[in-house]
Amino acid sequence: MQKRQKQGNLLRMKRKNVRTDVITPKGFLFSAVEAAIKKPGRKDLALIYSEKEAVMSGMFTSNNVKAAPVKLDMKRIKTGKGQAIVVNSGNANACSGEQGMKDALEMTGLIAEGLKLVRGSVYACSTGVIGTRMPMERIRGKIPGLIAGLEKGTIPDAAAAIMTTDTFPKMVSRRVRVGNETGAITGICKGAGMICPNMATMLCFILTDLGIEKPALDRALREAVTPSFNKITIDGDMSTNDTVLIMANGMAGNRTVKNGSKSFKAFSSALSEVTGELSRLIVKDGEGATKLVEIMVKNARNRQDAENAAFAVANSLLVKTAIYGNDANWGRIMAALGYSGIPMDEEKTDIYFGRIKVVKNGISAGKDREAAEVLRDREISIVIDLHAGKASSTVLTCDLTEGYVRINAEYRT
Amino acid sequence: MQKRQKQGNLLRMKRKNVRTDVITPKGFLFSAVEAAIKKPGRKDLALIYSEKEAVMSGMFTSNNVKAAPVKLDMKRIKTGKGQAIVVNSGNANACSGEQGMKDALEMTGLIAEGLKLVRGSVYACSTGVIGTRMPMERIRGKIPGLIAGLEKGTIPDAAAAIMTTDTFPKMVSRRVRVGNETGAITGICKGAGMICPNMATMLCFILTDLGIEKPALDRALREAVTPSFNKITIDGDMSTNDTVLIMANGMAGNRTVKNGSKSFKAFSSALSEVTGELSRLIVKDGEGATKLVEIMVKNARNRQDAENAAFAVANSLLVKTAIYGNDANWGRIMAALGYSGIPMDEEKTDIYFGRIKVVKNGISAGKDREAAEVLRDREISIVIDLHAGKASSTVLTCDLTEGYVRINAEYRT
Repeated sequence: MQKRQKQGNLLRMKRKNVRTDVITPKGFLFSAVEAAIKKPGRKDLALIYSEKEAVMSGMFTSNNVKAAPVKLDMKRIKTGKGQAIVVNSGNANACSGEQGMKDALEMTGLIAEGLKLVRGSVYACSTGVIGTRMPMERIRGKIPGLIAGLEKGTIPDAAAAIMTTDTFPKMVSRRVRVGNETGAITGICKGAGMICPNMATMLCFILTDLGIEKPALDRALREAVTPSFNKITIDGDMSTNDTVLIMANGMAGNRTVKNGSKSFKAFSSALSEVTGELSRLIVKDGEGATKLVEIMVKNARNRQDAENAAFAVANSLLVKTAIYGNDANWGRIMAALGYSGIPMDEEKTDIYFGRIKVVKNGISAGKDREAAEVLRDREISIVIDLHAGKASSTVLTCDLTEGYVRINAEYRT
Repeated sequence: MQKRQKQGNLLRMKRKNVRTDVITPKGFLFSAVEAAIKKPGRKDLALIYSEKEAVMSGMFTSNNVKAAPVKLDMKRIKTGKGQAIVVNSGNANACSGEQGMKDALEMTGLIAEGLKLVRGSVYACSTGVIGTRMPMERIRGKIPGLIAGLEKGTIPDAAAAIMTTDTFPKMVSRRVRVGNETGAITGICKGAGMICPNMATMLCFILTDLGIEKPALDRALREAVTPSFNKITIDGDMSTNDTVLIMANGMAGNRTVKNGSKSFKAFSSALSEVTGELSRLIVKDGEGATKLVEIMVKNARNRQDAENAAFAVANSLLVKTAIYGNDANWGRIMAALGYSGIPMDEEKTDIYFGRIKVVKNGISAGKDREAAEVLRDREISIVIDLHAGKASSTVLTCDLTEGYVRINAEYRT
């Protein structure tokens, strides 16, 4: 990472209260170079490499329009194995037709050749502008340097290189004890915009030196992604490129984690902590966002109702702009609940901003001023009690600001 | 209307190319007064009165959370008759509990008393902030003046008084010949934000001196609203107060229009023109909007697919900000189509910005620069050809700007 860039990242992470320490799991190497994919001046091509072949699992966007590398990875993940991931920012390689698939194949092919791997063990991920051809002539020339860089690259290098409109790199680590061995799980991701997943989200790479069986890894990943990456929204737009990949190379030397065992529980809960914290970082760093908002709907008839209601509120432009303006305009929340499609009793609904009960039985509790004070915080909790059952769901969102509009009106220019 | 306010409205209408002429159908009287409902300085309480009892029809929000006046009107419209509508801006009388219903009943009761009408023939509509009590003490005192004002009030007075964040009053008229008589249909409405209807939308009052049977009026209204008010979106938020009411008082002296007759066709098509033009005015005047955008999805498998796809694109924040920024970022349109839930063949999709084919078979046609030029217009047409069938749907939307954020971050303050 260029020194200036690195210092800027550190500063922004500090400002947003983001931890900057990260553990490198055994046997993983990293590299990042500048390929001027969208424009020069920053590293935008990264490589993650495991010295030993890893057990792998992945989750991908449920968007019908899928980027070429997503299609490729979805095929390769069926082997359940892999050894390297090449990632670029600046270009999504989506809506790029046959040429896009050729380009993704070439990128992984060049890496496989350089690292002396079988082709199928290299995965590709892209993020950035949709519909532009990959600048393969520039990328091609950078591959040797990218591979050579594995000697001294670090996780923050890779985390910074996959950023697009993110303002800081996102990295989270946990240590996990399995039997007598201690391993690590480290995740890095990028987010910022086009965030509203149904399935997986954004680009996220999770690396662990623990050994785990493939079915156990699949299950742990699914259980970790469902309540985290699948419950965040920045703008309601779901990307063509969302990918979560996890590599487990077993180099911690533990007894392989099996489905349903005690060590599975430890692994799974640590993994959920990693994805949970990463998803908070994504929303915190939402485009133009100044506030992280947790919307919890509780006592709904069933889980689906709770989720639909929470997403309706979390995606409401009027709710998001009111939060930005420190306006405890709970009427907009009631309106969003009303059109969320769930059956609801207006008269039974309570709403809390932090600890302030602002709505009681569907009408004002006379606490708008106190609630507005709550909105001045950087992290806000809104709880909606439907009094209709026992199910609940929590969604993370952010406020909507002029900054979001500016970033997205000018993104390609 | 205060003179200064009137001149401002005329100027803004001129700037947005809005016609300012309007026909007053026979036997309708109008009035508007200043009741300082949200704040002083503008007329915010209006009355529409028909000298003869009118046949009436209405369509209402499908939001589960309905304002008190909506609930009241939905009951009263079952009689199919009415003679007056009292409307206020500044307060939605929604999420206002039992007190809200009492207030709506009192407002209509006072009007009925003053005009010597039966209670049930007066309708109430409210628009503005949700969850605040109606300032009945101020409203009560203004009712006599409101009724007295019918002597000299005009349609523009009423159209201006129902505005909230609208920047100009919205009025559209058509003349219709039925047999030997010529009547008029005039609609006024307010919109601006919280616009994404499933059923009806915003507040709209349509007045005609033509005589028409109730079933014919119901059908004509439904047919007029479906492709107009039900196909517009500004922010994807559906209001608690959306109401369309039509009054037909028969004072043009025509032979009563019957369902399925030739004159029904004339009436129906004129009514559709009125609602169509009003819905364009609403989107044109969307909060912070600088551009009117028509999204047409054609050659879809079926109507529902076409509509879902068009609304996904029309509601995408990323599409709307790109249009604001004059960026022909068609990749965001592809992404929105992809997550709209319809089965789609990326490889079969063509996209046009105006006459410029920007996407051919799902990939760039190399015309981004030409397409960006199209986006500089104030009225933009985007056509998406799915090549999957024969159905089509058109939705009107607007761009998303810093202005929208500003208006809605500061709405209550």
